[in-house]
Amino acid sequence: SGLSVLHFQDLLPALDGDLKTMTFLQEVVDILLAYITESFDRETKVIDFHYPNELLQRNNWELQDEPETLDDILISCRATLKYAIKTAHPRYFNQLSTGLDMVGLAADWLTSTANTNMFTYEVAPVFVLLEYVTLKKMREIIGWEDGRGDGIFSPGGAISNMYAMLLARFKMFPEVKEKGMSSVPRLAAFTSEHSHFSIKKGAAALGIGTESVICIKADESGKMIPADLERKILEAKQKGFVPFFVSATAGTTVYGAFDPLIAISDICKKYQVWFHVDGAWGGSLIMSRMHKWKLDGVERSVLKLTWNPHKMMAVPLQCSALLVREEGLMQNCNQMHACYLFQQDKHYDLSYDTGDKALQCGRHVDIFKLWLMWRAKGTIGFEAQIDKCLELSEYLYNKIKDREGYEMVFNGKPQHTNVCFWYLPPGMRYMEDKEEKKKRLHKVAPVIKARMMEYGTTMVSYQPQGDKVNFFRMVISNPAATFEDIDFLIEEIERLGQDL
Amino acid sequence: SGLSVLHFQDLLPALDGDLKTMTFLQEVVDILLAYITESFDRETKVIDFHYPNELLQRNNWELQDEPETLDDILISCRATLKYAIKTAHPRYFNQLSTGLDMVGLAADWLTSTANTNMFTYEVAPVFVLLEYVTLKKMREIIGWEDGRGDGIFSPGGAISNMYAMLLARFKMFPEVKEKGMSSVPRLAAFTSEHSHFSIKKGAAALGIGTESVICIKADESGKMIPADLERKILEAKQKGFVPFFVSATAGTTVYGAFDPLIAISDICKKYQVWFHVDGAWGGSLIMSRMHKWKLDGVERSVLKLTWNPHKMMAVPLQCSALLVREEGLMQNCNQMHACYLFQQDKHYDLSYDTGDKALQCGRHVDIFKLWLMWRAKGTIGFEAQIDKCLELSEYLYNKIKDREGYEMVFNGKPQHTNVCFWYLPPGMRYMEDKEEKKKRLHKVAPVIKARMMEYGTTMVSYQPQGDKVNFFRMVISNPAATFEDIDFLIEEIERLGQDL
Repeated sequence: SGLSVLHFQDLLPALDGDLKTMTFLQEVVDILLAYITESFDRETKVIDFHYPNELLQRNNWELQDEPETLDDILISCRATLKYAIKTAHPRYFNQLSTGLDMVGLAADWLTSTANTNMFTYEVAPVFVLLEYVTLKKMREIIGWEDGRGDGIFSPGGAISNMYAMLLARFKMFPEVKEKGMSSVPRLAAFTSEHSHFSIKKGAAALGIGTESVICIKADESGKMIPADLERKILEAKQKGFVPFFVSATAGTTVYGAFDPLIAISDICKKYQVWFHVDGAWGGSLIMSRMHKWKLDGVERSVLKLTWNPHKMMAVPLQCSALLVREEGLMQNCNQMHACYLFQQDKHYDLSYDTGDKALQCGRHVDIFKLWLMWRAKGTIGFEAQIDKCLELSEYLYNKIKDREGYEMVFNGKPQHTNVCFWYLPPGMRYMEDKEEKKKRLHKVAPVIKARMMEYGTTMVSYQPQGDKVNFFRMVISNPAATFEDIDFLIEEIERLGQDL
Repeated sequence: SGLSVLHFQDLLPALDGDLKTMTFLQEVVDILLAYITESFDRETKVIDFHYPNELLQRNNWELQDEPETLDDILISCRATLKYAIKTAHPRYFNQLSTGLDMVGLAADWLTSTANTNMFTYEVAPVFVLLEYVTLKKMREIIGWEDGRGDGIFSPGGAISNMYAMLLARFKMFPEVKEKGMSSVPRLAAFTSEHSHFSIKKGAAALGIGTESVICIKADESGKMIPADLERKILEAKQKGFVPFFVSATAGTTVYGAFDPLIAISDICKKYQVWFHVDGAWGGSLIMSRMHKWKLDGVERSVLKLTWNPHKMMAVPLQCSALLVREEGLMQNCNQMHACYLFQQDKHYDLSYDTGDKALQCGRHVDIFKLWLMWRAKGTIGFEAQIDKCLELSEYLYNKIKDREGYEMVFNGKPQHTNVCFWYLPPGMRYMEDKEEKKKRLHKVAPVIKARMMEYGTTMVSYQPQGDKVNFFRMVISNPAATFEDIDFLIEEIERLGQDL
């Protein structure tokens, strides 16, 4: 293609660089298109796995003083994709974010090409408007009156949750912004023992401290027990702490449990504690008429809700929204009035300069992929996609709950797409010594997982939880998955684990 | 093209969706390629500006229940780009991040296609390795022995600076992680009055409080005055504060000033305060043999350095690195041991599961575009690009410093590409009443800027600073800019401002 004698200087903005640029970019696109087709092909491996030291040696990844040719650059692109995880693969179930949406991908390519920043309307007019339109729509769906409120797209659910805690603290003690935690009594935050680790991470960062995050007991299926919340709020008050923040989870990471939001919100109201819902994983179920009852009470989240469209709605990474009920709160909490960005004498409506309410200065454009996918699917398209994933997970649950060699980690139908189970190899099924059995079972999932990766046939996550030894956590957010892929998964686990 | 009867369900993973997907994505790519060519064309407008309410009405941006056809999706893509800022345009100078690198763009398209997450080697094997390779290279360039140390790519310089402050606090008072700020004495952080607002924003978020950020005086050209730093550290100690953090700036946002790092680091050493360098804007000059003396002393930053390749190195947004000298510190400060991600019984070397040292859980892949551009340019290519921008800015400075109608905001050659100046329209040049002149001059830059945007010919930023009324801050990071574009800018300001 002639690219073997060309270098980056031959591309735009070089004079007469148009044609060479088009050739180069088209070659890259061809590589990407081939990768996409391959990713959806069940005959392809999910991953061509190599250990870190081996992968370091399989290619020259070093950075040099001298430039490479554009042909070399294409070679690097191919090598990178060769060893990448095919996250679009119908049998990739490893994380809460899986799949690759073609409209979302197109939108992300456009976003990269537009290459701008969300801080002001001045530099991102369309994207700022689309964020406005989309956040309003999301608030309407939650059920906040006329879709009123505020919100922001942030770099992931952990940061969204940190925002929520930050806002709750500021709302109760606005002087903390200037004076810091020394002006504030000892605070206490509450969240279930099954909640996401980002609540503790946020508390550590914000100077609240992880010991101020009080863990509330969850029931057998992973839902927060409201009575334990009330008891621990009272206990904290007695010890002189000021309860300021409850983070309920809509869709826990491992079990997919939905905390009872109505009961929790009643307690929050009674003790005047700010009520946040971490719906990073389960928030999207609000788009499903069949499943949204699991989020009943979410509209009472007086302060905010984390909702990650990059998970259950399969929007490309990253796309996480924080929705805030009170207008102006984020602005008051975070603004620093940088006069080089947020000039007050600009010629347009400054309410669209939303950057000062963020913790970030520059902020990546995460909105366009969600917006364009929403246009392509409509609300009903997202609903169908979500319903289908839940249907697949119910299919899996029904198939293994009484199947020989399987044991469910908790009883009853899962509320989200999380299906948590142990696979017991034949030799382990009738062991008498419970402790020995537990010890051996703990090692089964890691070995099967390692074999999955070495064969590259599928990927699913495992972990221990509390006193429960390693179990598989199957989750389905990949719109490419079918009933046949679920069948395959079961057979594959049995094939890879039968000799253990 | 047949797309007018197709919907998203016709695309992959649909059965036989390959061809339709290729057609759709290729159409999108064609739109993007046309936009790219147009963006580099000086005959095109930088922006087709409309006021927010008007832009809301010029297109249907609403989200509906029903899906749209793929043709409609292409129409939305075109509309979005029509009203977008052409950040690649050779005459777009509005922000510190400008330009569009073709290799960086290709890399970002690949990143979107790979659609994965940085938390573990398991799901991002290549990208985790490339982050490792690149951070090591960056540390070598700083001059840390054998490139040892740690680091992370974070969502922007503001978050990188927040990390730095978080690490400094943890290093001095590790109990803060569990016990919060109530276990810590009243802290004081120090930064120059010209530093970036993210230092205060970070202090507010971390529960330190903005009042604990003590502003150090800058000299006439915007550099921190070390004697004032020493005085204020002593003052703070006398008041019972514990000085824990000094953030020096390498390249301030408005003036582009480099704080005297050696003198500051000596003071930090003397008083045992952690020394951070915010090189978000100026850090990249370390890649230039001609300009890196401005960063002399950066290797002494005992703790960390923020360095944003998305600014002066023109890597697509977003790409910000935090480099940390001490190995293990980030991990100790931030880890929460989430057992569903960071299983300790995996089959590969767990030191590559870097996610737990981040504040984020999911983390966008920001490394590939920097890595691929580095391969394409080599270190010497980045150097040439940086040197050229500085050469252009010197050209601008020399051209206007004695030109009729211009006044420089500070004396002497700028250290970075920031050229700060007032343009005085003819009618204002000989005004006797200094106060009246100042008042009128304050209004000149906003009007010229508004006209620039309405004509769409160029964009450059303005702001007041301290007692200085609105002035233009020209910055050059756009590799597409030439001497002719600088000439054009001067003429355009004069054309748009002569009647004021």
